[in-house]
Amino acid sequence: MERLWHCQDMPRVSKDPTPIAAAPARQATIRESNLALLYRLIVDAPAPVSRAALAAATGMTRATASALADALLAGGLIAEVAPPPAASAGRPAAGLVPARTGPAGWGLEVNVDYLAACVVDLSGTVRATVMRHGDQRDREVGEVLDDLADLAREVAVPGLKPAGIALAVPGLVQTPTGRIQRAPNLGWEDLEVTERLRKLMPEAMLAPMVGNEADFAALAEAHAGLEDGATNADFLYVSGEIGVGAGIVLAGELFRGSRGWAGEIGHVTVEPGGAACRCGARGCLETVAGLEALQRLGPQAAATALGRAVAAAVNLFDLPAVVLGGVYARADLAAVLVPGVAGALAEHVVSAPWAPVAVRASRWGEAAAATGAATAVVRRVHAEPAAWVGAGVA
Amino acid sequence: MERLWHCQDMPRVSKDPTPIAAAPARQATIRESNLALLYRLIVDAPAPVSRAALAAATGMTRATASALADALLAGGLIAEVAPPPAASAGRPAAGLVPARTGPAGWGLEVNVDYLAACVVDLSGTVRATVMRHGDQRDREVGEVLDDLADLAREVAVPGLKPAGIALAVPGLVQTPTGRIQRAPNLGWEDLEVTERLRKLMPEAMLAPMVGNEADFAALAEAHAGLEDGATNADFLYVSGEIGVGAGIVLAGELFRGSRGWAGEIGHVTVEPGGAACRCGARGCLETVAGLEALQRLGPQAAATALGRAVAAAVNLFDLPAVVLGGVYARADLAAVLVPGVAGALAEHVVSAPWAPVAVRASRWGEAAAATGAATAVVRRVHAEPAAWVGAGVA
Repeated sequence: MERLWHCQDMPRVSKDPTPIAAAPARQATIRESNLALLYRLIVDAPAPVSRAALAAATGMTRATASALADALLAGGLIAEVAPPPAASAGRPAAGLVPARTGPAGWGLEVNVDYLAACVVDLSGTVRATVMRHGDQRDREVGEVLDDLADLAREVAVPGLKPAGIALAVPGLVQTPTGRIQRAPNLGWEDLEVTERLRKLMPEAMLAPMVGNEADFAALAEAHAGLEDGATNADFLYVSGEIGVGAGIVLAGELFRGSRGWAGEIGHVTVEPGGAACRCGARGCLETVAGLEALQRLGPQAAATALGRAVAAAVNLFDLPAVVLGGVYARADLAAVLVPGVAGALAEHVVSAPWAPVAVRASRWGEAAAATGAATAVVRRVHAEPAAWVGAGVA
Repeated sequence: MERLWHCQDMPRVSKDPTPIAAAPARQATIRESNLALLYRLIVDAPAPVSRAALAAATGMTRATASALADALLAGGLIAEVAPPPAASAGRPAAGLVPARTGPAGWGLEVNVDYLAACVVDLSGTVRATVMRHGDQRDREVGEVLDDLADLAREVAVPGLKPAGIALAVPGLVQTPTGRIQRAPNLGWEDLEVTERLRKLMPEAMLAPMVGNEADFAALAEAHAGLEDGATNADFLYVSGEIGVGAGIVLAGELFRGSRGWAGEIGHVTVEPGGAACRCGARGCLETVAGLEALQRLGPQAAATALGRAVAAAVNLFDLPAVVLGGVYARADLAAVLVPGVAGALAEHVVSAPWAPVAVRASRWGEAAAATGAATAVVRRVHAEPAAWVGAGVA
């Protein structure tokens, strides 16, 4: 019967304890998931939440909800704010909000022509960003990481400490190991950097994360700096740099593909038999719409090619919106690329006649991936708050 | 606090009762999900399962597991088989398997040049298939449905009765309404057919389903006719008919996209400025690799174009395998298309150097979509067995 435990359709047995399996070993998991449930409610709420409202929303007793909230408070993950002026009789309840001091997410990015760092607090607010321009191609990895360590210190904000650190790279990253498989525009192949990231920030509770820059940038677009509780749910994010990458967001979550390598839009063929690409093939989107080609051929050529590749992605994924990021978000380029891509989508997407696809420039510009990397750390804390909370409570 | 109940990250509150919410209203749901859990174990097991093994695998008491199994037996969803010859001392236990009589899935397909029907039983075995060739273009919908009703009767198997019916169409279908948005190669626009399907089989417990033919065909490839408990997990299924469609399977489940319209590979641009397509654009895959173009231009041209579009899909979705179906699976065509597509993937997919993509022809040929439609009904029964089971048990 061993195989029964490996069925992919039965996550409830292994991950999600039910009332039928109440062995002592399960209790910690129930408490952990209740903590996470409560924290998620506080994080997603558009306004401060009272303990009574938490109890009502979860079906927990008031005492249980209160004890869990106290644990989150003690762990520094939430804060208590003064009640609003009483609108009705009786003593108004204090409200709970995500903490704006204490643990926070540190995001780093290495791209072809710049380095960046960003700090996002547990409320999802971007607290600081630093960027350093300069060609990173064919530099020694250790030197790049030393520079990133400098930036991580520079970006620090008084009152915030790293809960974890995430690094964005323009290439393919293995999940869940974080091994960098290939970042062709940096000249990087098969690199393990998580150990060095760990040493860079030994006080962080979470293990370092490494991910694709377009994926992280998409995460920033989905979650960072929005009004409390808001999310951009479904869209294709296209990142234009020296290379071109994409992050696909579905229901607010990144779509990573079987092995974490989804979104390689830069190597969709847009000009059969066209120019040679650094990947070895010909006519890839990057050869027409990468930054260098864009400077050489002009934004109109890039818009046509980009429209073709983006239309392919929208036909395949069925997405209602497209966000152009990286250099594509620069005002002068966006003025040509946004209408160009919108026109291609209207022409090539089968469902467009009755469900037009929205196209817009990213709000984050070049700092998007570092912002998204920091956001990824914050979301990890939101999903697994138990690590910050004493084991004996509730 | 109303908004708290709509958070997408908290399915557990609304769908998955936890020990903290044990109000009477929840009991039915707990029982339903326990029934489904038990049924899933029986369905996925590679061999007959004893009641004791079910109790052990779920953490339920032997009495609870037995009562639920009895309910599934009474509902006709499982059967009891004689124990294997005793290998050890003691009386061997009877084993439980999915029923091969009683409720079954009925699948229908309308495609451009044929109609098909298929019956799949609850064990996932294909029990009967009928096909009727003939041009369906621009026929009156009512006439087509009358013909499908004939086929549904023709395909009937003694001892099996319809649990539900599903219709596959070569076009875009709205979810969850089942409204046919557009099937350009049939000349169908904005059609509601579920009411007529319901009347066609009023004894079916499940509401009729309508879906895209490539999606259903992919489902057949993922689940039908495999060894007990086996699943093909992650692949792109490309269906070549008059039109060209794709179904994307991730972890054994269909990927449908935001609105159910994912997989429109037939309208990926493969020849910029190429021939006019029925969709209104130029140079779509269908104009080179649809059945009529394929007959005119030959399989080599189709292989090149198909390779380009499939490589785009694999770069975007990160999939380890591609299955060519519909006419592409015909031996003479597969002999050219399979190596042609494999070559294009090796050249254009960024991750191919260390993770080659497998390409093969479908096992199901033209009956794939009807088989998948019937499989979709069976999977619905597997997921929600409670409807077949008396309310008072366990």
